[in-house]
Amino acid sequence: MRPELRPVESVRKLAELGAWGINLHDNDLVPFDATPAERDRIVHEFKQALNDYGMVVPMATTNLFFHPIFKDGAFTSVDPSIRVFALQKTMRAIDLGVELGAQTYVFWGGREGVDAEASKNPVEAVKRMREAINFLSDYVLDNGYNLRFALEPKPNEPRSDTYFPTIGHMLAFIYTLDHPDMVGLNPEVAHEHMLGLNFVHGVAQALEAGKLFHIDLNDQKGPRYDQDLRFGSESIKSMFFLVKLLEDQGYDGPRHFDAHAYRSEDEQGVWDFAAGCMRTYNILKEKARRFNADPEIQALLTEINSGNSEHAALFNGGYSKEAANKLRAIDFDVETLASRGFQYERLDQLTVELLLGVR
Amino acid sequence: MRPELRPVESVRKLAELGAWGINLHDNDLVPFDATPAERDRIVHEFKQALNDYGMVVPMATTNLFFHPIFKDGAFTSVDPSIRVFALQKTMRAIDLGVELGAQTYVFWGGREGVDAEASKNPVEAVKRMREAINFLSDYVLDNGYNLRFALEPKPNEPRSDTYFPTIGHMLAFIYTLDHPDMVGLNPEVAHEHMLGLNFVHGVAQALEAGKLFHIDLNDQKGPRYDQDLRFGSESIKSMFFLVKLLEDQGYDGPRHFDAHAYRSEDEQGVWDFAAGCMRTYNILKEKARRFNADPEIQALLTEINSGNSEHAALFNGGYSKEAANKLRAIDFDVETLASRGFQYERLDQLTVELLLGVR
Amino acid sequence: MRPELRPVESVRKLAELGAWGINLHDNDLVPFDATPAERDRIVHEFKQALNDYGMVVPMATTNLFFHPIFKDGAFTSVDPSIRVFALQKTMRAIDLGVELGAQTYVFWGGREGVDAEASKNPVEAVKRMREAINFLSDYVLDNGYNLRFALEPKPNEPRSDTYFPTIGHMLAFIYTLDHPDMVGLNPEVAHEHMLGLNFVHGVAQALEAGKLFHIDLNDQKGPRYDQDLRFGSESIKSMFFLVKLLEDQGYDGPRHFDAHAYRSEDEQGVWDFAAGCMRTYNILKEKARRFNADPEIQALLTEINSGNSEHAALFNGGYSKEAANKLRAIDFDVETLASRGFQYERLDQLTVELLLGVR
Amino acid sequence: MRPELRPVESVRKLAELGAWGINLHDNDLVPFDATPAERDRIVHEFKQALNDYGMVVPMATTNLFFHPIFKDGAFTSVDPSIRVFALQKTMRAIDLGVELGAQTYVFWGGREGVDAEASKNPVEAVKRMREAINFLSDYVLDNGYNLRFALEPKPNEPRSDTYFPTIGHMLAFIYTLDHPDMVGLNPEVAHEHMLGLNFVHGVAQALEAGKLFHIDLNDQKGPRYDQDLRFGSESIKSMFFLVKLLEDQGYDGPRHFDAHAYRSEDEQGVWDFAAGCMRTYNILKEKARRFNADPEIQALLTEINSGNSEHAALFNGGYSKEAANKLRAIDFDVETLASRGFQYERLDQLTVELLLGVR
Repeated sequence: MRPELRPVESVRKLAELGAWGINLHDNDLVPFDATPAERDRIVHEFKQALNDYGMVVPMATTNLFFHPIFKDGAFTSVDPSIRVFALQKTMRAIDLGVELGAQTYVFWGGREGVDAEASKNPVEAVKRMREAINFLSDYVLDNGYNLRFALEPKPNEPRSDTYFPTIGHMLAFIYTLDHPDMVGLNPEVAHEHMLGLNFVHGVAQALEAGKLFHIDLNDQKGPRYDQDLRFGSESIKSMFFLVKLLEDQGYDGPRHFDAHAYRSEDEQGVWDFAAGCMRTYNILKEKARRFNADPEIQALLTEINSGNSEHAALFNGGYSKEAANKLRAIDFDVETLASRGFQYERLDQLTVELLLGVR
Repeated sequence: MRPELRPVESVRKLAELGAWGINLHDNDLVPFDATPAERDRIVHEFKQALNDYGMVVPMATTNLFFHPIFKDGAFTSVDPSIRVFALQKTMRAIDLGVELGAQTYVFWGGREGVDAEASKNPVEAVKRMREAINFLSDYVLDNGYNLRFALEPKPNEPRSDTYFPTIGHMLAFIYTLDHPDMVGLNPEVAHEHMLGLNFVHGVAQALEAGKLFHIDLNDQKGPRYDQDLRFGSESIKSMFFLVKLLEDQGYDGPRHFDAHAYRSEDEQGVWDFAAGCMRTYNILKEKARRFNADPEIQALLTEINSGNSEHAALFNGGYSKEAANKLRAIDFDVETLASRGFQYERLDQLTVELLLGVR
Repeated sequence: MRPELRPVESVRKLAELGAWGINLHDNDLVPFDATPAERDRIVHEFKQALNDYGMVVPMATTNLFFHPIFKDGAFTSVDPSIRVFALQKTMRAIDLGVELGAQTYVFWGGREGVDAEASKNPVEAVKRMREAINFLSDYVLDNGYNLRFALEPKPNEPRSDTYFPTIGHMLAFIYTLDHPDMVGLNPEVAHEHMLGLNFVHGVAQALEAGKLFHIDLNDQKGPRYDQDLRFGSESIKSMFFLVKLLEDQGYDGPRHFDAHAYRSEDEQGVWDFAAGCMRTYNILKEKARRFNADPEIQALLTEINSGNSEHAALFNGGYSKEAANKLRAIDFDVETLASRGFQYERLDQLTVELLLGVR
Repeated sequence: MRPELRPVESVRKLAELGAWGINLHDNDLVPFDATPAERDRIVHEFKQALNDYGMVVPMATTNLFFHPIFKDGAFTSVDPSIRVFALQKTMRAIDLGVELGAQTYVFWGGREGVDAEASKNPVEAVKRMREAINFLSDYVLDNGYNLRFALEPKPNEPRSDTYFPTIGHMLAFIYTLDHPDMVGLNPEVAHEHMLGLNFVHGVAQALEAGKLFHIDLNDQKGPRYDQDLRFGSESIKSMFFLVKLLEDQGYDGPRHFDAHAYRSEDEQGVWDFAAGCMRTYNILKEKARRFNADPEIQALLTEINSGNSEHAALFNGGYSKEAANKLRAIDFDVETLASRGFQYERLDQLTVELLLGVR
């Protein structure tokens, strides 16, 4: 819809808008069929631009989904040559990423899935994906690179069903790898909202497990095609709780906006869009600060979270036969506990009013 | 809609229909407010019925969602007394399950979630759930019970958002427990189909990880309220691949039908429903056998899975500097690989025709 | 979850909160099995309460979904006796509604659908529904009642699939009735959001057609079970555009909150919830006023909507051979038109910031 | 993913596979920027091919979504020049369609919607769409063309929300046109399944209203991106009831397969796909015939549809005061009616077994 932007030009423009870094697919910078000499020239020029504008490349990744060779997937293709080609392409892209200073390497397996269920044994597909990530982890370690992997789940599109479709499936997969410590997640708002999942809960689970290595911020109008809308443009309440979670928990990774402008826009619209992403993040961050400082809200939260402190303390130390016996012997006032009002309507209304700027 | 069935009567009738076992929520058998004497009488009578009809209770569970005391959840309630009460109720139900011979204990946290996002810190909720499962694991071990836990995810209903909403999230959670070996999954068809997830892929991931402890078979018409329809009544193709997966992989746990008859039915309709669940499973099992024996399908699968054997062997031994160097040096014929036809339309059509009984 | 509220008590309390009216299902007021004498006593007492607190009953309706007799539907049941019984119950409820002063009569066919597709001919179902509405229209006309019908679509729950599942399907149905002028719609936010539909567009189509007779305001977290959440508690942006549409278009019917408090609430929570619905409506109404008065937003909208005025005028008078010929002869500057930027990112960001109260 | 097929080549190949006709977007045949001379040469050659292979073009349509000029829509664009250009392009494409023998003209407004809700007044959008269809209807009538319009709804993609998103909304819109008789629907399986709607019910409503002018057959795995899968490849049960409906009701329009092969296929896979669409339709048609001839199923349906014949006859003649009085006076045996079992589990199981080819 729009004339292409040169990478060097994007660096300049994003720097002006106040961005700290820029991320790239390998083929966004170096064309799929570039010669080694072309590749070196392009990389040199790009590094110069980063330097000139004080921008960094915190994250790099490989495009394993656009070229027709990947039409049946990359690491999980039924064709062994394609699986090996995908490894080769990724090794080269890892080298490039490290050269540009990236410390996080994102994997999004856009075509790692099926259209016809009969085409692949799903148990075998899990094993192939693990084999690939293990191989590449060893490659990074063997080369002494300072690089962590962040796996990005997506449930479908462009394939009918992608393997490891959610934060949860991908996180579970990580625990079965050879080097789980160097592998975490790069969750994306739109990818979880496409299923109607609560993104905040998914990110919280990843954070609690120490696995939020990176995050893709954008927006999505619920279950439909992948939209990558401007951050905060639709799911205002959820995105508020997301920003609050990231800020409250001290998440220190990049706030990466993986979104794109509506197709109706010209170049100016693209920059309006980019500025809007950042601006809305900051507005919501300020809302989170005010939520934490609001006396009425905080008093209510304290009241909601109060209760029998003896019960609260009962299994603080974890299980013991003694604790179990004590616990078994308690005679609860079921009636009273069952009739408790939790005041969540009031709490939620206060939240909505804070979001709407009327308190 | 229908007069209640007594548990003892259910045992008799299910035995007649050819069922092997029956599973129970604690309060399906023993009312919430039964006295100890009543409890003992009921259990005695029920064990007699099991004995008379040669039925077993392979799985037991606790109802932590129906009574108003659990309206804000059980293990993740903000109220410490409710959290402790839930533990007590579960310990008693574990004792009951073990007494009836159960070897699997299912946890479905129907209300472990939120309606108002502000009401709970989602990071804290993860910790509370872990604390509870750890405590109960230790209780089982301390009592020398031969019992494994199977956690059942569900994304929503009756709460807006439940914690650990999918197979993936729950599986990931298990790896963070004190005794991960005794904890696995009890996935349910409807609960994943409510999100539009591919249930077969989720079960495959759980199986591959050795974590499919139990399974709840039913059906669902996609994203909407939880329907628990008769097994195989809607998602014919998916349920075929599910049965094929379970049978091909030698899953040896129970095939548990966690479904209910349409509300339009009288008692006869309930038994029609129960017989239909079992009958359709067996039909699909026979279809899977024929799929595996079909020469045209198998020849096609062999062809689809063929390819450059040298490439296939390249990293069979995992990573080594030598393998990496070899791999980097390969000059791929990208054009040829990209133009390969995968024959998935033909394969899928053959599958559909096998399902429709016309081949 | 909560002790029941007596209807008379609800009238008093809602009046205190500033509500103008209250709506009732027949069986909310008069129990399903009340004798005629009980019915009369209850109605008398209720009318007294309305009078005492200056409240009106703008809308009435029949409960055709709760009693087991309706388990296969009412007007579309396969059983002719049930179809006739549903008519009888509705005629009585119409009489009751008119007696209480209602001028709108809502039809929500909660069970007018199927679980098993084979059970009903869907063409026949359309005819049965039409027959019933036609009969009841004639009943109203014959009795000289001043009453309009408002049909309420819902896609599913408690049945798998309900007939006339959206605003669109129901609106189309109306045009095929004997008395289309007296029949309009009662759309509900949650019912359309359950499908991921844009409620604002649906309501706009109904309004433009003169068919928005009533509206059910609540909220819903996308495709899942019917939630009936507090108005404006989730879909902040959509509900803003809904309120803006209703206010800008001069909709003069009731703003009816068909929602219920979270189950976690006690009675105080129910009143917090009711007040919140009304409060959020008014906040959004004020936001709409400010949107319409915001100079930057309005200037931008003017610019967006500008263009070649000759082209705009070309077919103002509708089709004529002359207009067609003129139109065919225009030589468009496709390149320029295709490269136009529409400034929607900027417009949308301004909207979001207005909603967040930061402009 | 695949080399392009020339239209003339498609005609030959489809004829060989047994197809009766082929449909075209204007720009599938004549490039967007062709000169009049090129246009005439291409059309001449194509008509020759139709003649040679005995194929017809039953339906034609305009591409109003691919070229960037339509990025904000065509008939509903905010830019009057683009609205007029869309009319001009459609008039020319109507002329072309008529020249090729088409009798149905399909409108699919791929970009007639919004991404940013604020960008368009949804009431105005309805009016603009009506104005365009009215103008074009008059153009057809004025030229004496034998052509009917078939409007195709789609809820979203490539825009966030499209106007007239379902069969219902589009059908309702038709009743507000100047020439409603010449306008009907072209519903598509995938477009309704993207919302989780029951396509069979939607088509039945259109058929009953005499508005099923055309149909687009394909398949879709529920709410996600538009997939256009091989007909009958996923929703086996629904597609059976769809074919049964079309055949039972004597639908005499084209069975149009608007689908595409998986991207994993080469040219042979495309033909496998096309043959599969037709083959599965015929298999399901044969299943429908057997369903109608199955004595057990038919006896059950008769029993299900039986009931009190006096009640059934009661309002056959429509409303009369007498009928109303009779009806009011009936004393129903509510208990008995409420306890009726509808035998839908048995009916549905028989259906599933017929589909699976085991009865």
